[in-house]
Amino acid sequence: MKRAYNFNAGPSALPEEVLVKAQKELVNFNGTGMSVMELSHRSKDYEAVHNEAKTLLTELLAIPENYEILFLQGGASLQFSMIPMNFLEDGKIGNYVLTGSWSEKALKEAKILGRTTSIAASTKDVNYNRIPELNELNVSPEDGYLHITSNNTIFGTQWKKFPSVSDNMLIADMSSDILSKPLPIQNFSMLYAGAQKNLGPSGVTVVIIRKDLLEKNNENTPTMLRYDTYVKNNSLYNTPPTFAIYMLRNVLQWVSERGGVAEIDRANQEKAALIYNAIDESDGFYQGHAEKESRSLMNITFNLRNEELSKKFLEEAKEVGFVGLNGHRSVGGCRASTYNAVPYEACDQLQQFMNKFKQLHG
Amino acid sequence: MKRAYNFNAGPSALPEEVLVKAQKELVNFNGTGMSVMELSHRSKDYEAVHNEAKTLLTELLAIPENYEILFLQGGASLQFSMIPMNFLEDGKIGNYVLTGSWSEKALKEAKILGRTTSIAASTKDVNYNRIPELNELNVSPEDGYLHITSNNTIFGTQWKKFPSVSDNMLIADMSSDILSKPLPIQNFSMLYAGAQKNLGPSGVTVVIIRKDLLEKNNENTPTMLRYDTYVKNNSLYNTPPTFAIYMLRNVLQWVSERGGVAEIDRANQEKAALIYNAIDESDGFYQGHAEKESRSLMNITFNLRNEELSKKFLEEAKEVGFVGLNGHRSVGGCRASTYNAVPYEACDQLQQFMNKFKQLHG
Repeated sequence: MKRAYNFNAGPSALPEEVLVKAQKELVNFNGTGMSVMELSHRSKDYEAVHNEAKTLLTELLAIPENYEILFLQGGASLQFSMIPMNFLEDGKIGNYVLTGSWSEKALKEAKILGRTTSIAASTKDVNYNRIPELNELNVSPEDGYLHITSNNTIFGTQWKKFPSVSDNMLIADMSSDILSKPLPIQNFSMLYAGAQKNLGPSGVTVVIIRKDLLEKNNENTPTMLRYDTYVKNNSLYNTPPTFAIYMLRNVLQWVSERGGVAEIDRANQEKAALIYNAIDESDGFYQGHAEKESRSLMNITFNLRNEELSKKFLEEAKEVGFVGLNGHRSVGGCRASTYNAVPYEACDQLQQFMNKFKQLHG
Repeated sequence: MKRAYNFNAGPSALPEEVLVKAQKELVNFNGTGMSVMELSHRSKDYEAVHNEAKTLLTELLAIPENYEILFLQGGASLQFSMIPMNFLEDGKIGNYVLTGSWSEKALKEAKILGRTTSIAASTKDVNYNRIPELNELNVSPEDGYLHITSNNTIFGTQWKKFPSVSDNMLIADMSSDILSKPLPIQNFSMLYAGAQKNLGPSGVTVVIIRKDLLEKNNENTPTMLRYDTYVKNNSLYNTPPTFAIYMLRNVLQWVSERGGVAEIDRANQEKAALIYNAIDESDGFYQGHAEKESRSLMNITFNLRNEELSKKFLEEAKEVGFVGLNGHRSVGGCRASTYNAVPYEACDQLQQFMNKFKQLHG
């Protein structure tokens, strides 16, 4: 059986090598006579996996010593609430840059909690087809933090440079582009990401947090919703999602074996270029949603001349084995998600298909 | 490689058949050319798994139509906060029966939130070696709910009968004995369970909730911490832990193929009897922690004559291949967890080992 050309927006493609390894040791992990899923989270065998995941991520992203790596559950969506719960207790303002649906949701959760919020910038008026310029952002030293969404899966835009804010209190939802390229970690007070795009399967959320932020925690915040609970217990306060963390460890090993994030970044640029070229050289047959300067290397959003043609494109693509090319309803048309684990071959095949479809219907 | 005799308290043994099936289809699920982990949570292939898990659980536990099944994350520990958040907004009292560490933690989280609580009964004075009699419970029609822990993994006690309270506002943490026996679901307003004992791997929490409770939700509760969010979206508001739910589905299929929970209950009674007999017929060489009437069929806690002998027992047991027999520090000694997936053979081997060890050191 051939592997599908999987362009899902998330959960998305995982490296075949990682899946094959997991398959091999699924029933008997490391000679234990047990699956990794059957290990106690307090056992040496499991803790080695857990700690290796942290070490590998530290190495791959060059995370400085004054940061902690945490494994949580609930996806980015739970972080939308934990961030204001943990960092706006003193009446400070949560300042949000709106660049798409996920940013809007993050802001909404701060409001549900009754916290004071502001909007540093928004590109909603152009249906989120671009990232604001850094000089468009309204920031203030009074902000508790500035929150951004580093890559917007639905609209296909991505931050290329990051703002510098006071005390570096920049928080980023990096769910859809973490580990895709080198990052200036010290610009951020906190990064977070649901794993199900570049890191592993769904079910684990990775948080990278600067240690001095942990002093700000509030005693009235539930134990499971306080970041310091995870720091104090090496993310083992209660049973973590052990299999998801094991898969994360395997994906990190794979990135490391491929030469790290600089090499992954180079490959991602090559892959995305194939598809963006098909768009740019189509004389308008394919129309990208995002402005060129804001284009995402992870999610490529485009439309065809009309809805009927888009539908035909998606139907034929599906027939020949492309998976997950349907765009989100708020943008319409098509989306190809080219995360780390999507092979060059899949992008090359998609480019060929796009060119052929244009020849037939252009 | 022989399978380990896995008596872990959780994460714990999974059925070998379930692991072999998962292994077989790990790289290519259902002819899709993708792993189940790589499927979109909005795809038909995944949704069929998700919905089959709900259907199987409904059948196996005979869940009435006025209940909903939800899949959450964060384990039972997050439920400890969600319960008071969702059900004590109107100033009602959260009434807790304390039968061990997990009950204490559930109460603590209600207090952190500043909610009014009371203690219906506690057996802390006897180091939680028994479940209170039903007539010992202080309940009031003013209670928002009565909260119990149906099985206490650390102390090895289990509720045999359940209290009837007004409006059946009984909430049970069933993390360690759900699916081990038939249940009178209609006695409860809500049941919940971290999956990692009888249901599957860690990373998914199952909630069974009576629909009329959902009207009580508060607008100021974060979206991810409201039960109605999961009901309205078939637990697909955000990306669920798809692989954990897939494994849950497979475990439920396995229980169904084995004849359902009545048959599982019969097998569990047989398995536990082997080990309790070794204790009871040892002339005091082995001493059970729990009072006989409160003994758990899931976690069998016992001590040897002194700490030195307990240590020797655990060392020799480990050498011959028994896993996870160390007791929790608050009880000491030994614990054998005999969840659904622990085979009869493992319990039989443990009984033989216990008898032999007694002959040598008694």
